[in-house]
Amino acid sequence: MNIATYTASANIAVVKYWGKKNEKLILPYNNSLSFTMDDNLQTITTVMFCKSLSQDELWLNGKKIDLQQGKRSHLLPVDLIREKASIDLKARIVSQNCFPTGAGFASSASGVAALVCATTKALGLSLTGQELSILARQGSGSASRSVYGGFVEWLQGERVDGSDSYAVQIAPHDHWPQLRNVIAVVETEEKKISSRHGMKTTTLTSPLYEKRLEYLKTLVPKMKEAVLKKDFATFAELTMRESNSMHASMLDTWPPIMYLSDGSREVIYTIENLNSELGKIVAGYTFDAGPNAHIYTTQEYVSIIKERLQKISQLKNILVCQVGEGPKQINDEKMFLIDPKNGNPKTLVQ
Amino acid sequence: MNIATYTASANIAVVKYWGKKNEKLILPYNNSLSFTMDDNLQTITTVMFCKSLSQDELWLNGKKIDLQQGKRSHLLPVDLIREKASIDLKARIVSQNCFPTGAGFASSASGVAALVCATTKALGLSLTGQELSILARQGSGSASRSVYGGFVEWLQGERVDGSDSYAVQIAPHDHWPQLRNVIAVVETEEKKISSRHGMKTTTLTSPLYEKRLEYLKTLVPKMKEAVLKKDFATFAELTMRESNSMHASMLDTWPPIMYLSDGSREVIYTIENLNSELGKIVAGYTFDAGPNAHIYTTQEYVSIIKERLQKISQLKNILVCQVGEGPKQINDEKMFLIDPKNGNPKTLVQ
Repeated sequence: MNIATYTASANIAVVKYWGKKNEKLILPYNNSLSFTMDDNLQTITTVMFCKSLSQDELWLNGKKIDLQQGKRSHLLPVDLIREKASIDLKARIVSQNCFPTGAGFASSASGVAALVCATTKALGLSLTGQELSILARQGSGSASRSVYGGFVEWLQGERVDGSDSYAVQIAPHDHWPQLRNVIAVVETEEKKISSRHGMKTTTLTSPLYEKRLEYLKTLVPKMKEAVLKKDFATFAELTMRESNSMHASMLDTWPPIMYLSDGSREVIYTIENLNSELGKIVAGYTFDAGPNAHIYTTQEYVSIIKERLQKISQLKNILVCQVGEGPKQINDEKMFLIDPKNGNPKTLVQ
Repeated sequence: MNIATYTASANIAVVKYWGKKNEKLILPYNNSLSFTMDDNLQTITTVMFCKSLSQDELWLNGKKIDLQQGKRSHLLPVDLIREKASIDLKARIVSQNCFPTGAGFASSASGVAALVCATTKALGLSLTGQELSILARQGSGSASRSVYGGFVEWLQGERVDGSDSYAVQIAPHDHWPQLRNVIAVVETEEKKISSRHGMKTTTLTSPLYEKRLEYLKTLVPKMKEAVLKKDFATFAELTMRESNSMHASMLDTWPPIMYLSDGSREVIYTIENLNSELGKIVAGYTFDAGPNAHIYTTQEYVSIIKERLQKISQLKNILVCQVGEGPKQINDEKMFLIDPKNGNPKTLVQ
């Protein structure tokens, strides 16, 4: 039977992907770095290929998605894998984000990574990590990194066909067991500006963006070295500076893109104050395309950070994650999101 | 008698001064452009030199300032003018900002410009605008521009002694009579980070700052051309982009400098929406080292802008200014802030 189920986790970048040199192939202007998170930020996806289906179907978090409405971009890898396998069957895809309610987190990375792994397996293909990463990249750029656990680098590559633009694992998930990510949720609502549109505008209009790319060329090797040495202070400072640099080039975009809110600024001041109080950098924030902070720290400082964050009036929620493993196949059919007996979609009770 | 009184007005820059290549002489890294405002944002200053004084004295807004506490930097021009005049008398300086209460505006430019003009006159010197500008610059960078009315450019200059770093008038105050500045006050409290400290940190730590300077080299001539042609749409767009660029390099500073608040962002969105609704750019915001917006527009759009701003929950106050003239000598002794009969300081009732 052509059915498979995978889980994959979101990743939290410390050198961000913001800007593509090729829109269709999703080829970025810079190498990026992230840690894949644990199962607190996980997506589970079941893919079934079946002769009786007349068209592809997608259920996302219990809702059927209308694929005629042009929202197929995340499904591009399915077409590519079908082509690779020379199989012309339609797919039923059922996917569910197992993120806590109010996580303020809606990354497509975990979803696309799980989709690519499940689709590949369902069609009986055996692909390398590099091949999976290239496929995931074409569904959502940052998904290229979520096909691995641990500390991951997405190489921008040089070839115009994107064949050398894929992620590699720099360190496994258990390289730095004390590392934690504290998510400070200051806004649970959806963002106004899509990343896809925003990053395009930045590359086209921000005079400062070019300088950011230059800066990242020297930052990436320093960041990798700091992580490999487990030099937390250097790692955290570079993480904060990189985040500020990205949001600076967003603000420099025309019209400006502004994700950081008063709540975000309070988180930044809270972390600055804590670091200066303790006389060393024990925490480093980073912000994606939204106002919620991802604060890297080590296990021993999690409780004091939570305590300090709770004083921020805009704070809605706090989550703590560890670095996690890469995608995993689920063999227990009871966990599948499609009932293998009758092909019906199921919904997990969270 | 060695006494003179001058008024001078604040200026609102459209290409900002942020960063010095010489801290002591106050030599900037870029040319800047501003409009001097009308008497809504005015300072009045009386300076008296008198043999009976044993030390310099300063009264600011009705309070005597302790000059022993090292806050003399704004008074440096007084020393320089005394030297020029070869006079060794101490001065009593009484200065008052006639800004409306809750203006959210505490520029030192108008104060230093009025001080330089009054001091020069009190000591019987007759200096050129260029000489006054160089003196004012050394008290507070942006004050170099407030010695002129209308549209003013501060040339960064090249010489190490600063002798070619002064302001020039590009257009007189009545060049563009329809031009208005609507000040949207979202925060009346004092700012946390001083500009002096902030701009130093930016030049030392922001990787993007260098690119901003490059960008300004092409922006300044375009901005001057737009103002001389009264091409409002171009002028306003360049103004907004320049402001965003400055706040971007502030955010890129380590540690980051963040002046824009949720209220500032609401003003930005309000202006964006108005411009897009009307299908043309009729308003352009700019932010100094603080969260309050200065919105350039023309007379006919002032009322609709005020109406839209009033919907912003964080809005505290709205002021409307016109472009104004340069410093003016006050001859009516009743207006002096020092009683010429007995030398006593007076306070104006606002």
